[in-house]
Amino acid sequence: MADEKNKRWKELADVKRELAQRDWFYGTSGNLSIKVSDDPITFLVTASGKDKRKETDEDFVLVDAAGQPVHPNEPLRPSAETLLHTYVYERTKAGCCLHVHTIDNNVISELYGDKGEVRFKGNEIIKALGYWEEDAEVAVPIIENPAHIPHLAEQFAVHLTDDAGAVLIRNHGITVWGKSAFEAKRVLEAYEFLFTYHLKVALYQKQLVK
Amino acid sequence: MADEKNKRWKELADVKRELAQRDWFYGTSGNLSIKVSDDPITFLVTASGKDKRKETDEDFVLVDAAGQPVHPNEPLRPSAETLLHTYVYERTKAGCCLHVHTIDNNVISELYGDKGEVRFKGNEIIKALGYWEEDAEVAVPIIENPAHIPHLAEQFAVHLTDDAGAVLIRNHGITVWGKSAFEAKRVLEAYEFLFTYHLKVALYQKQLVK
Amino acid sequence: MADEKNKRWKELADVKRELAQRDWFYGTSGNLSIKVSDDPITFLVTASGKDKRKETDEDFVLVDAAGQPVHPNEPLRPSAETLLHTYVYERTKAGCCLHVHTIDNNVISELYGDKGEVRFKGNEIIKALGYWEEDAEVAVPIIENPAHIPHLAEQFAVHLTDDAGAVLIRNHGITVWGKSAFEAKRVLEAYEFLFTYHLKVALYQKQLVK
Amino acid sequence: MADEKNKRWKELADVKRELAQRDWFYGTSGNLSIKVSDDPITFLVTASGKDKRKETDEDFVLVDAAGQPVHPNEPLRPSAETLLHTYVYERTKAGCCLHVHTIDNNVISELYGDKGEVRFKGNEIIKALGYWEEDAEVAVPIIENPAHIPHLAEQFAVHLTDDAGAVLIRNHGITVWGKSAFEAKRVLEAYEFLFTYHLKVALYQKQLVK
Repeated sequence: MADEKNKRWKELADVKRELAQRDWFYGTSGNLSIKVSDDPITFLVTASGKDKRKETDEDFVLVDAAGQPVHPNEPLRPSAETLLHTYVYERTKAGCCLHVHTIDNNVISELYGDKGEVRFKGNEIIKALGYWEEDAEVAVPIIENPAHIPHLAEQFAVHLTDDAGAVLIRNHGITVWGKSAFEAKRVLEAYEFLFTYHLKVALYQKQLVK
Repeated sequence: MADEKNKRWKELADVKRELAQRDWFYGTSGNLSIKVSDDPITFLVTASGKDKRKETDEDFVLVDAAGQPVHPNEPLRPSAETLLHTYVYERTKAGCCLHVHTIDNNVISELYGDKGEVRFKGNEIIKALGYWEEDAEVAVPIIENPAHIPHLAEQFAVHLTDDAGAVLIRNHGITVWGKSAFEAKRVLEAYEFLFTYHLKVALYQKQLVK
Repeated sequence: MADEKNKRWKELADVKRELAQRDWFYGTSGNLSIKVSDDPITFLVTASGKDKRKETDEDFVLVDAAGQPVHPNEPLRPSAETLLHTYVYERTKAGCCLHVHTIDNNVISELYGDKGEVRFKGNEIIKALGYWEEDAEVAVPIIENPAHIPHLAEQFAVHLTDDAGAVLIRNHGITVWGKSAFEAKRVLEAYEFLFTYHLKVALYQKQLVK
Repeated sequence: MADEKNKRWKELADVKRELAQRDWFYGTSGNLSIKVSDDPITFLVTASGKDKRKETDEDFVLVDAAGQPVHPNEPLRPSAETLLHTYVYERTKAGCCLHVHTIDNNVISELYGDKGEVRFKGNEIIKALGYWEEDAEVAVPIIENPAHIPHLAEQFAVHLTDDAGAVLIRNHGITVWGKSAFEAKRVLEAYEFLFTYHLKVALYQKQLVK
């Protein structure tokens, strides 16, 4: 168990470092988790209010299926949004869950928020999401952003129908999950590429092609 | 005192390095400070005219409440805008003050300069500023940019009503302060996120949604 | 042969590292190759589905002219798009071939896809493509993006008329090749500069100059 | 002399590294120089056709006032545009000259090329250019870009009236010079900030303020 915890810690630290290099944790935003054991469910989740550009021994806290610290004397608080992660591990076979705020995922979430989803089609990067057909279309649900975390988590949990996926929270970033840290990060990168591409091509189609 | 100075020096050097990695010190712009002692007030402030992408033993100067070097033979001049920092430590309980020029904080300061402030609402990152309600709205005052520093500092000082906050100087960047370097940086990042997000979403709302 | 392989491995690893620093491999996209021997043709190509921001001993696979692993027990699969690379080494004297997805090469490929090509003229960086005349014009063909790789490779192969060049695949990135890794990277950078420049100047000519 | 050469080499290497970190040398573009001696004039200039993201012992060549290698058996060719640097050291007291292509300096040079100059006013960063008055206005001349380097150099030389300054070459980047590497870089950064700021604020003034 200690070995498994150390291995997962290192994996999550790697992902954290990469996302920090992209500067995706402005204002201590964002939270990340990785599953350590299945029975009972335990997972490492980012501690609350840390600067995620730094690497320390207190970056992650081991919590149980309810999101409570496994070690009773744990001085670290898990992220305030740990509840969303507990639903991921309860309802899917995902092994990793990543939540980040980027400018473009916030912009997309606001522009398409009233429609409740945004759809993408016809870009090669969609294959990174596991869709290999030529005209594959992907949809990301967009949910509202109530300040009360349990309400947010409930709305979020509705969309946990696959072992890998993504939900946009309006003006609050994206949450992705996958069977491994590798898959979760691939899903995250593919969607961020689609968001940025979509915004840029739409502007030019409006401005230049008309 | 020497220990406290060394500790604060390291903290400020960490912040400087991070902001330099984002390339927020173009043309030797920007100045940073951190409080070392309360009674009497002394603080470290960036030396004038240095390349803040480099790290040296001459990056910061220890100054008193009036912004004068504590060590009379100090060969380094404190930043020309040290006067603004002295007001921060005189009027608030802040422990750190950061002033940076970014493209987007300059653009926002010009677009909303005539209104004297810019307001943001409905983005999750506002929580990083200490507002946790669902519809929290934040306002950043925008002041003009007289070449005479004492005039600038006077206008600036009017807005020093809290221990953490921010003021935009028109076409001259943002000044933020907070109880610690950690808080000041969090405030800075939250506002920079809001500036960039606001500009991008406004363009698309105009172009695509109409 | 082992020496040559090691030398080329290092060269390709250098290029991979640089492109990864620019974050041009979102979602495990992209594939790279470098020729190791001419008779028979063998080349190193990126292994399938790796995170190209990491450096490991399994980053590249040695394959033959048909794109099959040279070592029968090779546990690594070559990139799914290796077929395009085999055409490059079969039909030209190129020594290196790079395929990357960027936002701007995707945007350009979509905006000009119906025309089947995009043309650039009058920018100094065109000299990096080997055209030194004052009014040199360059054209990049844009092909469609069938999901069936052999169809894609056939369309691509039509444009392999020089030892250095580039093809855009619609919504799927650019493929460039050159006599050396150095040349291939120079061609790639020159086109990416032209794509980004073209998009930005076109927007401003429309908005400001009218 | 050897000491002075080593010292200047290191200074120029530092500048090169910083500009390379910003990715301002796409497609082997750009060239840099630093003066080593005054009587006779000698300077180090970037060797032709190198990848300026790498650091090697062959990055720079020592040349004389005419731009010819000082060491007759020098295997390295100085940059093709060394002629412009010779004018800088002949006509001014500058100690360093930097030429780089960026997207935004290319866009500005094209948008304002027909006017022969671009002017900026009212941004604090103008102080980094040595103008401290409140309403200081700066102008950067924009010259055409003939393929014949001696013609280009002649047009360029007309504007060498100060020991620090800048010229935009249409669709070919900026050339700045200053008394030291530190000053030349500060001038470069200040102008690049002004270019990017100007483009962004102009777009928003057109789109949002109307």
